[in-house]
Amino acid sequence: MIDCDVHQNFDSLSELLPWIDPAHRDYIRHSGFGGFELPNYLTWTHPHGTTRCDAVPPDGGAPGSDYETVRKQLLDPLDIEYAILTGEDILSVSSLPNPQVAAAVATAYNRWLIDEWLPRDSRLKGSLIVASQGAERAAEEIRAFGDHPDIVQVLLPCAAPAGYGHPQYHPIYEAAIEVGLPVAMHVGGEGLGINPPPTATGYPTYYIEWHVLLIQCAMSHVAALTFHGVFERYPELRVAVIEAGVAWLPSLLWRMDTDWKALRSEVPWVKRLPSETVREHMRFTTQPLEDPEKLEQALGLVDGLEDMLMFATDYPHWDFDRPDLVSRRLPTSWRKKVMGENARALYGLPLAPAVSVTATEAGRTS
Amino acid sequence: MIDCDVHQNFDSLSELLPWIDPAHRDYIRHSGFGGFELPNYLTWTHPHGTTRCDAVPPDGGAPGSDYETVRKQLLDPLDIEYAILTGEDILSVSSLPNPQVAAAVATAYNRWLIDEWLPRDSRLKGSLIVASQGAERAAEEIRAFGDHPDIVQVLLPCAAPAGYGHPQYHPIYEAAIEVGLPVAMHVGGEGLGINPPPTATGYPTYYIEWHVLLIQCAMSHVAALTFHGVFERYPELRVAVIEAGVAWLPSLLWRMDTDWKALRSEVPWVKRLPSETVREHMRFTTQPLEDPEKLEQALGLVDGLEDMLMFATDYPHWDFDRPDLVSRRLPTSWRKKVMGENARALYGLPLAPAVSVTATEAGRTS
Repeated sequence: MIDCDVHQNFDSLSELLPWIDPAHRDYIRHSGFGGFELPNYLTWTHPHGTTRCDAVPPDGGAPGSDYETVRKQLLDPLDIEYAILTGEDILSVSSLPNPQVAAAVATAYNRWLIDEWLPRDSRLKGSLIVASQGAERAAEEIRAFGDHPDIVQVLLPCAAPAGYGHPQYHPIYEAAIEVGLPVAMHVGGEGLGINPPPTATGYPTYYIEWHVLLIQCAMSHVAALTFHGVFERYPELRVAVIEAGVAWLPSLLWRMDTDWKALRSEVPWVKRLPSETVREHMRFTTQPLEDPEKLEQALGLVDGLEDMLMFATDYPHWDFDRPDLVSRRLPTSWRKKVMGENARALYGLPLAPAVSVTATEAGRTS
Repeated sequence: MIDCDVHQNFDSLSELLPWIDPAHRDYIRHSGFGGFELPNYLTWTHPHGTTRCDAVPPDGGAPGSDYETVRKQLLDPLDIEYAILTGEDILSVSSLPNPQVAAAVATAYNRWLIDEWLPRDSRLKGSLIVASQGAERAAEEIRAFGDHPDIVQVLLPCAAPAGYGHPQYHPIYEAAIEVGLPVAMHVGGEGLGINPPPTATGYPTYYIEWHVLLIQCAMSHVAALTFHGVFERYPELRVAVIEAGVAWLPSLLWRMDTDWKALRSEVPWVKRLPSETVREHMRFTTQPLEDPEKLEQALGLVDGLEDMLMFATDYPHWDFDRPDLVSRRLPTSWRKKVMGENARALYGLPLAPAVSVTATEAGRTS
């Protein structure tokens, strides 16, 4: 089983200081109120806390910040073949107004990820986070780090001032293709900093509204990628959408197909039915899997959906999906694909050999 | 058959001058570049034009601006029992920064509607448009005109800087209940004037993106009405959502139910499953009915959906839905309800007696 969304984190941003370039080190130390902080990930605070209460490491610190806790709580007991690490606080990097600072923080994060996490355990695979505010700089980042053997994707936070189909983002896709990586978009940072309000009617009032509606960014990116013709321009490109659930996808595909039939003269570079393009080029992680009584019927509404879904736990978030519970709710014939094979194909992961775990300090290379 | 979305329009805003209060008449005549204009309804322009080409009146003018054309093209040939008029250009009134001007224009529109349209044909029923920028003033408008026998609902444009569940809008609901009218929300004005961008990732590039994604405002309003507990506070309130299609509704209800089970401590005033509340209190017009091959299967995913849908043509828009085509795609047992009975119940419309048409000029009372 491959878990496509595991949130490892730094305990505080100062943990990244050894990896930040000297030009920005003082900025991170001294700017703002006694040191730089990323915008608060959740303006809308979860009433019981955003993470599982049992995920705090034994010696304290942020959930997801301690490898041993992740191993004991997730990797070992759930028999996870690979865990795709997606970061946590760093996902609000797309909200920063200053693109140089954003890029510097992303680079420091990526170096920390590569040095501190990936060497520890052969099950861990990394996502290269880039600051989409500056696509040319992001492309350089991808070319600099994208060939690391344990980096499996480029990761963009969903929060953005434009749909990710917009030409301003194309350098990111060119670089990703060059290094042979898919690009992922992960929920995060919506409504913070320089990004637009998180819903089409502005700022919601409650966390529950924010959480129900955070699918709107994902919907917008799917439409923008499709109608800007990104997949016609970059046929090798594959894009994953992470932590937005999946129940909204069938109706969006119908709506896109219906409108394309009537309006394609406006976007003549879009050559095929949008649903066919999405089916070929995009993947969606299951979590948080919506919970209708008629799930199997709902999933059957899109041909080929079994090839588009990839399982994720979203550890250590509050709405963690247990693999056994998800698996038994999928149609039997879908289980192997959704619980592992689709992710293996997207990320080019070999059938895992015996797990190799490095002693905690041994992985540190700087 | 009852058509719940028919766009009558003025040919130009100056047509409303006889009905505007004297304090604002000069403003409408002289402000801006040689006269006040409502914000352009579509920044994102439809490649073939937003209305049916054949809907231009024989003597010219805006589609929907000539009663005889509406009668000959829609009411008579399609044997429409009632047509709910929903306006057109006026739907961007919620984008105006100046709340006094917005309210004055809405009032002039309502007086024009009542004097010029409603007396002409017993099949025509009107929507009282209010400027939601100022809820107290909107409530006065509802109390002033809401008891007109041919006004069947209060109408808010979907474009708004907050979800319509927010307490700032509650005076509108109190007044609507007082005069016994449902409240409708109609797509319109998204991303214009003082309203937020029309998607959660900002301004789309193309009309097709704008159109696919305009459901986001509707989704946000459904979530906001639910989680602010508007229907617990106003149990008599009924709300219709117009011109946003329906395929997105099942997955939104699942997502709201799932999150409510986990997060209801944040919104303890929400006493029931969101899907039950929506089923009891909300109605949705069918147009533009999304076109999946598996429509019947999709519609069956929500219990009671047959009681929530109301047919609409959206005349004279480009994506007009023909009643025979919609009807035959509905489950047989749903047809009577969706094509008329649900709207009759919501609007309290009697079984229509013989059609009464007034000679064109006779309806003019001012």
